[in-house]
Amino acid sequence: MTFSAADHAAMAQALRLAARGLNTTTPNPRVGCVIVRDGLVVAEGWHERAGEPHAEILALAAAGERARGATAYVTLEPCSHFGRTPPCADALIDAGVARVVAAMGDPNPLVSGRGMERLRASGIVAELGLLESEAQELNIGFVSRMSRGRPWLRLKAAASLDGKTALANGVSQWITGAEARRDGHAWRARACAVLTGIGTVREDDPRLNVRDVACERQPLKILIDARLEISPQARLLENGGCLIVTATDDPAKSARLRDLGAELLVLPNATGKVDLPRLMRELGERGFNEIHVEAGLKLNGSLLRENCVDEILLYIAPMLVGDQAQGLFNLPALTSLAGATKLHIRDLRQIGSDFRIIARPGVQ
Amino acid sequence: MTFSAADHAAMAQALRLAARGLNTTTPNPRVGCVIVRDGLVVAEGWHERAGEPHAEILALAAAGERARGATAYVTLEPCSHFGRTPPCADALIDAGVARVVAAMGDPNPLVSGRGMERLRASGIVAELGLLESEAQELNIGFVSRMSRGRPWLRLKAAASLDGKTALANGVSQWITGAEARRDGHAWRARACAVLTGIGTVREDDPRLNVRDVACERQPLKILIDARLEISPQARLLENGGCLIVTATDDPAKSARLRDLGAELLVLPNATGKVDLPRLMRELGERGFNEIHVEAGLKLNGSLLRENCVDEILLYIAPMLVGDQAQGLFNLPALTSLAGATKLHIRDLRQIGSDFRIIARPGVQ
Repeated sequence: MTFSAADHAAMAQALRLAARGLNTTTPNPRVGCVIVRDGLVVAEGWHERAGEPHAEILALAAAGERARGATAYVTLEPCSHFGRTPPCADALIDAGVARVVAAMGDPNPLVSGRGMERLRASGIVAELGLLESEAQELNIGFVSRMSRGRPWLRLKAAASLDGKTALANGVSQWITGAEARRDGHAWRARACAVLTGIGTVREDDPRLNVRDVACERQPLKILIDARLEISPQARLLENGGCLIVTATDDPAKSARLRDLGAELLVLPNATGKVDLPRLMRELGERGFNEIHVEAGLKLNGSLLRENCVDEILLYIAPMLVGDQAQGLFNLPALTSLAGATKLHIRDLRQIGSDFRIIARPGVQ
Repeated sequence: MTFSAADHAAMAQALRLAARGLNTTTPNPRVGCVIVRDGLVVAEGWHERAGEPHAEILALAAAGERARGATAYVTLEPCSHFGRTPPCADALIDAGVARVVAAMGDPNPLVSGRGMERLRASGIVAELGLLESEAQELNIGFVSRMSRGRPWLRLKAAASLDGKTALANGVSQWITGAEARRDGHAWRARACAVLTGIGTVREDDPRLNVRDVACERQPLKILIDARLEISPQARLLENGGCLIVTATDDPAKSARLRDLGAELLVLPNATGKVDLPRLMRELGERGFNEIHVEAGLKLNGSLLRENCVDEILLYIAPMLVGDQAQGLFNLPALTSLAGATKLHIRDLRQIGSDFRIIARPGVQ
């Protein structure tokens, strides 16, 4: 399949439109659509939130009769099934478009390819794969949930240049500057949930909500608290929206936390800790696409050891605090570098006076 | 002072020429010279090594009669005194140049400005400060030695993403990849000396010579070994060129090391360790411009605590090894982030599959 420069430009615009739903579409994917006729963009649409119209429907409505004979560029294969809304493939057929270009196929293996087939069966030229990797990245959590049954877990941390996230006495505010913290809030805002551990709640008493950037939807807060040690006064419990995952079935404590608006989930593993891989599957079933972790070295280490980490978002401040401070990941001592967790760098940039690395496990 | 685009282009070329002497001019500065007449470059020159002609002399020789009425661009104020060679200011005057533009003044406070004055006294237009910061950077070690009486100390380290330079058992080869190691050798090559500690010699038995890049001059090797624990079999002692700095005056051990070609320097401080600030002054007196440190967390920490570190050259591999491995800097535990050593980032880039940060103490 080869695509023209005009095709690329239209799909790039559809991706920009899709990204407008970055913080709001959950559990749905972010999708954009551009309709082009005779070389001119005649309509655009993007999905804003679940239950509201899909990108294609909005674009077709805006196009009206101008959709006839046009090309529709859509960042995700149009759906062919009845969900909360009727199938978009049918709407494209009914509108008389001549050609549909989708950036990527539906990542749900049960329906993948059906939308394109349905279009082709109606005589529409249906093409797939234009700016596919960009589209996959935009919906990395949705793709993860559909293809692996678990969310995309992004572990955020802020460290000194010598790899320390907090002093030995727990002090960590603030290692990085205001710009890096604001950038961190933008990543929180796009996540379905922000996950932390009881150690961080004890030391920092964080709210974990989105404050430094505009955000109309607050992510759920998830606390890993194996022994239900959270104080009822913890700021994490303010304003509800908190899921406490524990390994302890303590009816009295649980009831008190439920009274404060929290949901309790008991998921013990064989060692009396929270079963993190099971939690990931559970969150996948609940429709969580992206999980944003802000925790300390213990939970960070556990998530890494149990292969739950898909991405590391690390802010590094040009500051040295010395080797007695707290590290990033609590892991068993290695005897050989062959046992190290190898990552590859996805992005590296300066942010304010700090810098940021995005890395993912595995060699690229 | 305002300079034209043509002035900038000529000085930029002079700086590129000067940089050809990066690895060879020590203890002299790297200097380049471009002679321009009627808008055309008529001659170029650069200083290659001590005892050989200065950049201006080479450029004037190449220009011959074309130097008359020309502008000479030189990256450092021409000398006005007899050193190993006659004063360059006089040569410029004798050649009949009309204008001299120098990027920076002589950093030696005893002679600074004299070259420019001498030129002006002869009716030459003499201007200073074009691309000055670039010129200062190129000779950062020479400037340091002339203005502070001590070399520029660049501390190189390679760490995992979680800030570890070696596993708990000492294994550190190789955290970073071949490209980063080659880049590290390029930094060794420009240094007057490579400095390490006895801990690194014991654990890695390094040669500390320049291998991965072409280099006709090997930097001196300096070992900090307070108790003279180095083994006579240590690879550091191969091929001579090793200065062992100790706090122990042990005639037998010293004699044996001298027999192996090493020079011994006894510089104890009040706590029985090597007096590092005194060593810096000593190296300044000996004409060392840039010192390249490759050591472990103890010596790194000591150099940092004693304010001997001017620059950190840190290679970070996208790899996690866990908090039980060895850190970058051994420092006393802090109780407040106010006590952290603040740096500012000078450069940040990916090198192969790793990345590199250059940072300097102080807020920019």
